[in-house]
Amino acid sequence: VEDQVSSRPAAPSIAQWRLYSQASLGLKEYWYPVASSASVRRGSKSVVLCGEQIYLVRNGGRVFAVQDRCPHRCVPFSGDGGKGAARCDFAGHLTCRYHGWVFNLESGNLAAALTDGPESPIAGKVMLRTFPVQERWGMIWLWPGSRPAGPLEADVPDEFLLPDSRVYARFGLRQGNWRYAVENGFDEGHAKYLHRDSLWTAFMKLPGWNKTSIEREAGEPWLSRVQTEVHFDSDYPGLGRWPRYGFWKRSGHPSSERARATCSVRLPGLLRVVYPAFRIYEWYVPVEEDRHIYVQVNVRQARGLDRLKWALYYSLLIRGIQHRFLNNQDAWMVKLMPDSHPERFYRPDASITGWRRLVEQEARDYTTVEQAS
Amino acid sequence: VEDQVSSRPAAPSIAQWRLYSQASLGLKEYWYPVASSASVRRGSKSVVLCGEQIYLVRNGGRVFAVQDRCPHRCVPFSGDGGKGAARCDFAGHLTCRYHGWVFNLESGNLAAALTDGPESPIAGKVMLRTFPVQERWGMIWLWPGSRPAGPLEADVPDEFLLPDSRVYARFGLRQGNWRYAVENGFDEGHAKYLHRDSLWTAFMKLPGWNKTSIEREAGEPWLSRVQTEVHFDSDYPGLGRWPRYGFWKRSGHPSSERARATCSVRLPGLLRVVYPAFRIYEWYVPVEEDRHIYVQVNVRQARGLDRLKWALYYSLLIRGIQHRFLNNQDAWMVKLMPDSHPERFYRPDASITGWRRLVEQEARDYTTVEQAS
Amino acid sequence: VEDQVSSRPAAPSIAQWRLYSQASLGLKEYWYPVASSASVRRGSKSVVLCGEQIYLVRNGGRVFAVQDRCPHRCVPFSGDGGKGAARCDFAGHLTCRYHGWVFNLESGNLAAALTDGPESPIAGKVMLRTFPVQERWGMIWLWPGSRPAGPLEADVPDEFLLPDSRVYARFGLRQGNWRYAVENGFDEGHAKYLHRDSLWTAFMKLPGWNKTSIEREAGEPWLSRVQTEVHFDSDYPGLGRWPRYGFWKRSGHPSSERARATCSVRLPGLLRVVYPAFRIYEWYVPVEEDRHIYVQVNVRQARGLDRLKWALYYSLLIRGIQHRFLNNQDAWMVKLMPDSHPERFYRPDASITGWRRLVEQEARDYTTVEQAS
Repeated sequence: VEDQVSSRPAAPSIAQWRLYSQASLGLKEYWYPVASSASVRRGSKSVVLCGEQIYLVRNGGRVFAVQDRCPHRCVPFSGDGGKGAARCDFAGHLTCRYHGWVFNLESGNLAAALTDGPESPIAGKVMLRTFPVQERWGMIWLWPGSRPAGPLEADVPDEFLLPDSRVYARFGLRQGNWRYAVENGFDEGHAKYLHRDSLWTAFMKLPGWNKTSIEREAGEPWLSRVQTEVHFDSDYPGLGRWPRYGFWKRSGHPSSERARATCSVRLPGLLRVVYPAFRIYEWYVPVEEDRHIYVQVNVRQARGLDRLKWALYYSLLIRGIQHRFLNNQDAWMVKLMPDSHPERFYRPDASITGWRRLVEQEARDYTTVEQAS
Repeated sequence: VEDQVSSRPAAPSIAQWRLYSQASLGLKEYWYPVASSASVRRGSKSVVLCGEQIYLVRNGGRVFAVQDRCPHRCVPFSGDGGKGAARCDFAGHLTCRYHGWVFNLESGNLAAALTDGPESPIAGKVMLRTFPVQERWGMIWLWPGSRPAGPLEADVPDEFLLPDSRVYARFGLRQGNWRYAVENGFDEGHAKYLHRDSLWTAFMKLPGWNKTSIEREAGEPWLSRVQTEVHFDSDYPGLGRWPRYGFWKRSGHPSSERARATCSVRLPGLLRVVYPAFRIYEWYVPVEEDRHIYVQVNVRQARGLDRLKWALYYSLLIRGIQHRFLNNQDAWMVKLMPDSHPERFYRPDASITGWRRLVEQEARDYTTVEQAS
Repeated sequence: VEDQVSSRPAAPSIAQWRLYSQASLGLKEYWYPVASSASVRRGSKSVVLCGEQIYLVRNGGRVFAVQDRCPHRCVPFSGDGGKGAARCDFAGHLTCRYHGWVFNLESGNLAAALTDGPESPIAGKVMLRTFPVQERWGMIWLWPGSRPAGPLEADVPDEFLLPDSRVYARFGLRQGNWRYAVENGFDEGHAKYLHRDSLWTAFMKLPGWNKTSIEREAGEPWLSRVQTEVHFDSDYPGLGRWPRYGFWKRSGHPSSERARATCSVRLPGLLRVVYPAFRIYEWYVPVEEDRHIYVQVNVRQARGLDRLKWALYYSLLIRGIQHRFLNNQDAWMVKLMPDSHPERFYRPDASITGWRRLVEQEARDYTTVEQAS
């Protein structure tokens, strides 16, 4: 016995990953999708991204993002329980509900303090923090970092940028730290056990285990899991044969390929799963230490009737079954993982350590590093 | 731009107000109203005042106040969830439900430990802390301080002491620290914006802004806001005209005077608002750091039919509309203010800094100062 | 006045009892009953004992106990909200729901990591912590300590071991630290006051007070309260006569003897109450600092019809009235006692200090002592 695991959590071994272990609130110098456009059709919405509470408001058709605290007395613009604590008295401006301070939504500049009159000396002398925001593909994107925002195109898969691309997205708030969610997504091992009994895999002979290599093509942001050996049922010494397949499971079925879907990850925490018939992207957007927004995305280039057919296929099969079943099981595990814990890796965890190494070596987030020193 | 406000709360600037910033649990050497007499008609009630849990019990018609913990094993007399953990086996005494320790309600002296017999050596050797308590004007008043209680008359408005005065009071537990509640009450700026859309102000042309001076008459405990200029709609550069009055709003209406109600504050945290037809007093009684009791009071000198007519007017117009509408909006803002936060004052906040200066210079609470040194 | 008790809790005086004050999570080197066999008839159950979360699972008729965290990624086997996160793919083994790690339930040894194939190098190299467990008298017993488990027989009353003994037990989770629960059980004083008005004592003349000596027979594990004087109603100076008995209460009734039930305690926290007609044992099993499992036990040697008659008597009179009424009152008081508090003892508390001394002098728990140094 090499390792006697005690029941008391030891210091988390993730400390060896320096930048990674500091990034409990996320890597900040990236664009993140935080909500669907539809959810801010009219009115406003408060979101938390990388620990920052941000107020999204649509004004004159455009979405703006500012810090969700009036600098005067720190009352949140979003109020609580639905009653918004902000108003729009003037186009392109936001008025705090408490004392009538009016901020320019674009610049953050205090345009007036209404209750101190037109000549109030404070006008123009207070700045509300604003956040770079874009609305693309039916989604609202935020840049929570402190450095100037880069191009959004650099932070989305190339497929988004193709002509006629249509993006289908589903947003959900999930428990657990964003890093464990990324790892669960890219994790080689769990797919073969946790997801055996989902409706999605009900009719396929899912392999029992495989050997994998973690690979990176030059110039590509994606780190990929490539299966070098795939094994179905095997004899385990002292235990017996596993898995036992029901007669209704078919290995010749295209679903066996589906089972061999290749899986890739890129920074800051974006997963790509390539099935024979479609691809799924998953963002794990940092909220607070114990929560993340989970964004499941499908992209399709199609027009006219094809687009209609795909929308139907997506909504029934992908959103209705794949998204729901597989990912409810994942959400469950990510939630169960404690905040810090001792870890004991096995061979398939090369996917996890590969991903952590990627963060260490290539993450844009200089801020996090500076904070530590 | 003079001041770039970051989204991270800095150290609260209230530290410059020394006594004030220490008084998160209240100024203790004052009388406070804590409950209506009706709420302790029979039986008992547990209240928290300035962080102290106090047990109120009526015995032989009188109300007594003692610490809500038996000194033996620290079980609260009030129990939990309604089942009282105290009994009255002997007139003028309280018996702890656990072991039968009997305390004299007047002196706090342990008169007997029943389960140790009449010759128990502990009898007369333990003291339960008692609190000075008075019942006046249908209210129960407590002195939470450690110095000898002063006269109650010194801590109520003179109007209470006039012949034929009748006091109408409404008690409510509110979220937020008592100091922000006092400040919200005396705050010049918010009345002109926050309360614009209440039912109370529905038919009056509320001014948009004004200039105010904070004044004190010699010998008076009250610090007052006096409006030196009153402005209705004005042109704000780059924004336009504000406010815009509905056709149904009238400035010639007596309510326009109502809008110019003068407002005063005194220690420890008592507000007076003088409307043309009546006055309102408001106590913000410290409970815990994040809660206070809010007491809205009207006083009227009247007899016979006049008194009856006033009771009707009070209950419909004042209690039913003024108390409810204006103050629900205030409660909302006080609750939204975070515990500690950076502050950025503007001219109308002279009311707030004036009040803080009053605390620094004149508060009776020596205890708080000593605790800090 | 010897002692002016302030309302601010001082440092708890229990610090003078060194081992006792460290044992907030329990004395660990003992056997404890944690659940009825019936509650793990099939399937599994997660319990917390002395701060350790332990997974109980029945496999092949036997009950096993292991730490409730997979050493790989720390996911609890018990999952949450009823959905178990463990499976049984192979007899005598447990499979973690996440990645298919298979542990031998007897030894804790990692028999296989299914998703890494039959030749996974990690097999046999990870150990899951197991806990000594026994199933006797319809109860499941655990040894939470770090030293080798002693014989179960040494930790149960002799009566359990007699031929034809049948044990009747009732388990309940209660609020409050286990030590205050033990003390409440062995506490001389409270029985005479707190329990005066229970249905159980409705028809007996319960004494008002008594003198007691705390005694220990040589070679016996039990520390006993022996009543040397028993007093019914007495005159209390300045207060009057107490108690006042209803006409329906009888002192000649056998219940008056019942009232004089002798009460004993032994380590780690086992109470014995001897009534004329039966005995009750009570375990106060440490869970977390603020919770304990309360086990009420009756033992009876009987066969055939006698056993049947007793089962009826037990379920109606003992379980239905004695267990419920007396102990709901006790649960209430134990819950009300704050975590740490100043204490002020009186003569009857000799029972409590006697028990604390027993812990200091004889408790088996060396671990606790070592942790402190």
